[in-house]
Amino acid sequence: MDYAATTPVDKEVIKEMLPYFDKTYGNASSIHTFGRDAFDAVEKAREQVAGIINAKPDEIIFTSGGSESDNLAIKGIAYKNKEKRKSEKNHIITCAIEHPAVLKVCNFLEKQGFNIEYIPVDKNGLININELENAISKDTFLITVMFANNEIGTIEPIEQIGKIAKKNNILFHTDAVQAVGKVPIDVNKQNIDLLSISSHKIYGPKGVGALYIRKGISIESLIHGGGHEKGLRSGTYNTPGIVGLGKACELSKDRFTKDVSHMKKLRDNLIKNVLKIEESYLNGHTTERLCNNTHFRFTAIEGESLNLMLDDKGIAGSTGSACSSKKLQASHVLLSIGLKPEEAHGSLRLTLGRYSTLEEIEYASDVLPDIVKKLRDMSPLWNG
Amino acid sequence: MDYAATTPVDKEVIKEMLPYFDKTYGNASSIHTFGRDAFDAVEKAREQVAGIINAKPDEIIFTSGGSESDNLAIKGIAYKNKEKRKSEKNHIITCAIEHPAVLKVCNFLEKQGFNIEYIPVDKNGLININELENAISKDTFLITVMFANNEIGTIEPIEQIGKIAKKNNILFHTDAVQAVGKVPIDVNKQNIDLLSISSHKIYGPKGVGALYIRKGISIESLIHGGGHEKGLRSGTYNTPGIVGLGKACELSKDRFTKDVSHMKKLRDNLIKNVLKIEESYLNGHTTERLCNNTHFRFTAIEGESLNLMLDDKGIAGSTGSACSSKKLQASHVLLSIGLKPEEAHGSLRLTLGRYSTLEEIEYASDVLPDIVKKLRDMSPLWNG
Repeated sequence: MDYAATTPVDKEVIKEMLPYFDKTYGNASSIHTFGRDAFDAVEKAREQVAGIINAKPDEIIFTSGGSESDNLAIKGIAYKNKEKRKSEKNHIITCAIEHPAVLKVCNFLEKQGFNIEYIPVDKNGLININELENAISKDTFLITVMFANNEIGTIEPIEQIGKIAKKNNILFHTDAVQAVGKVPIDVNKQNIDLLSISSHKIYGPKGVGALYIRKGISIESLIHGGGHEKGLRSGTYNTPGIVGLGKACELSKDRFTKDVSHMKKLRDNLIKNVLKIEESYLNGHTTERLCNNTHFRFTAIEGESLNLMLDDKGIAGSTGSACSSKKLQASHVLLSIGLKPEEAHGSLRLTLGRYSTLEEIEYASDVLPDIVKKLRDMSPLWNG
Repeated sequence: MDYAATTPVDKEVIKEMLPYFDKTYGNASSIHTFGRDAFDAVEKAREQVAGIINAKPDEIIFTSGGSESDNLAIKGIAYKNKEKRKSEKNHIITCAIEHPAVLKVCNFLEKQGFNIEYIPVDKNGLININELENAISKDTFLITVMFANNEIGTIEPIEQIGKIAKKNNILFHTDAVQAVGKVPIDVNKQNIDLLSISSHKIYGPKGVGALYIRKGISIESLIHGGGHEKGLRSGTYNTPGIVGLGKACELSKDRFTKDVSHMKKLRDNLIKNVLKIEESYLNGHTTERLCNNTHFRFTAIEGESLNLMLDDKGIAGSTGSACSSKKLQASHVLLSIGLKPEEAHGSLRLTLGRYSTLEEIEYASDVLPDIVKKLRDMSPLWNG
């Protein structure tokens, strides 16, 4: 129940990838037949990726994953802007609950002299649109706000932000790593200029991702070299990975309605069951929420212990995101929605996916109350 | 015959990778069993990679490939140096025939105010050690010279450069993408501080690589985010890819002597046969040469046409590197060793590998003279 951390690769995706390891294994930049066959496979995948966000194939750049896409988008725009405008505009607006791949990039750019504004969110994790609009100045060149939060699952008002960005002639990047396959995305309708995609969150392989860059927008490269991807991302094409991402996107598009309704049904079932536990709460928004996300907190419970005991019962959950799960500080997302550190530490994220079953939900719903009780019995903080 | 561009993934490597796609597919940063199993696989691979260059496992950082490793090494040292020393030292020494993943990074840093010195090579592609030594100033903080050239296969005097770097207290990075598995590498004996590795050149999967960073050396991250790899390289671990790279390194180490003697025998056979063609020449060094590399030039021949005709006969060759093979300018490597543009354009690289056979060599040796003759018959430059 940790699909937000990663997903297994779909069998159809593996099947599609396999020939590219040792049969059609050419370097996609080579001019011979082996190379051209690999090139064709890469270009087919580009169409498949473009297809799920209503982009054009030549607006898609392949990367090594969501983190690289976020880095490439934000640093790429920042450096290009600096170069073109000679530092005239140096203001970036982002959100307090972004993924570290956005936040840490912003921190890094701050050290380099950029001015970053971190817009707060409300208690459900929704960005404060008024504050965002008020933060815009003549120096603002980029807004970067995630499509949906990776911990609490809150879906941000992307279309509204897109409109604001467009009206003010500011570029808009969104980290859509958690949203793809779960929320309808249309870069044109939603006025998105750059969008990050990760493969391993949508039943594709790890180590590959994509960045959508609207035609006409120029960015600085992050990985310089052989000049692949129109000079924006150098490095030999990861053909099997790219083919896998393409297929995963195709499946994601084809199965969208089915997958979403399946996950939503299970999610609502799980939420209903878990909230029967005394002093249990749902973090995040009740309706503007990813179809696969549940995120609870339990008074007087330590999330780490809860997860270890769940693991013992064969249930994989998480305290927050996997990306930072080995750190002990409280989640910046949970603190941003107003939780106290001890509340943040008592949290549990259970996320569902294409292969989740009602039996799994029922099993977790059965097991969880006992574990919570056991932990509370040992807790000095619990006086129930 | 284009193993320098890329290699097929070894069957044993594929076998090792497969379970990590849909069975042990956990996020290596997750604390549950699925995550810990993936973590263990990543750490095993780290040992395997360290093993082929005599490094310690904790000196290995996983990346998306050779280009990222080069970018991370050079920018990482440059930015960290700038931060620590407040731009006091800003001089980098490199070599004229480096791979674009090094050269373009140097060009980029030059635009940012760093001072880069490009040391020339002789007609065989060997770096001018005297010029390198004379170029060192009190401002030099990094020397980056490739282990072996990707086009003409010349092996640089790495141990000598390592000594010079150490004596002058300068960090030494080497792009060893083409050398791994073909030349003995020992980062301690050779005084190497940072070394780039690519997986797909050694029968591992594409989209993964590694950077060796000697213990105690600190660098700035290139991809910021979740803080993986001690904060040096963020992004969910590409477990199958990393496992594949690890296995490829292990095989490479185990088979080193066998592979090298096999390739050398075939290489020498091929060189002997091809040089029987009238007005044909070998580019690169005769002895300080990669065991799998042949690189010829033929008077009055256009390399592109030669390659297309070879392709027609089922032989995959290359004019230069695959990385830049779709560009029409003459190779910077060939111009650097003193070839005229028309000579550079008449070049052919045929590179061998673990699975090359004597039959393939004989077939190519049979086919090539006819093709050269046919092209020369059509060429206005040929008056033979």
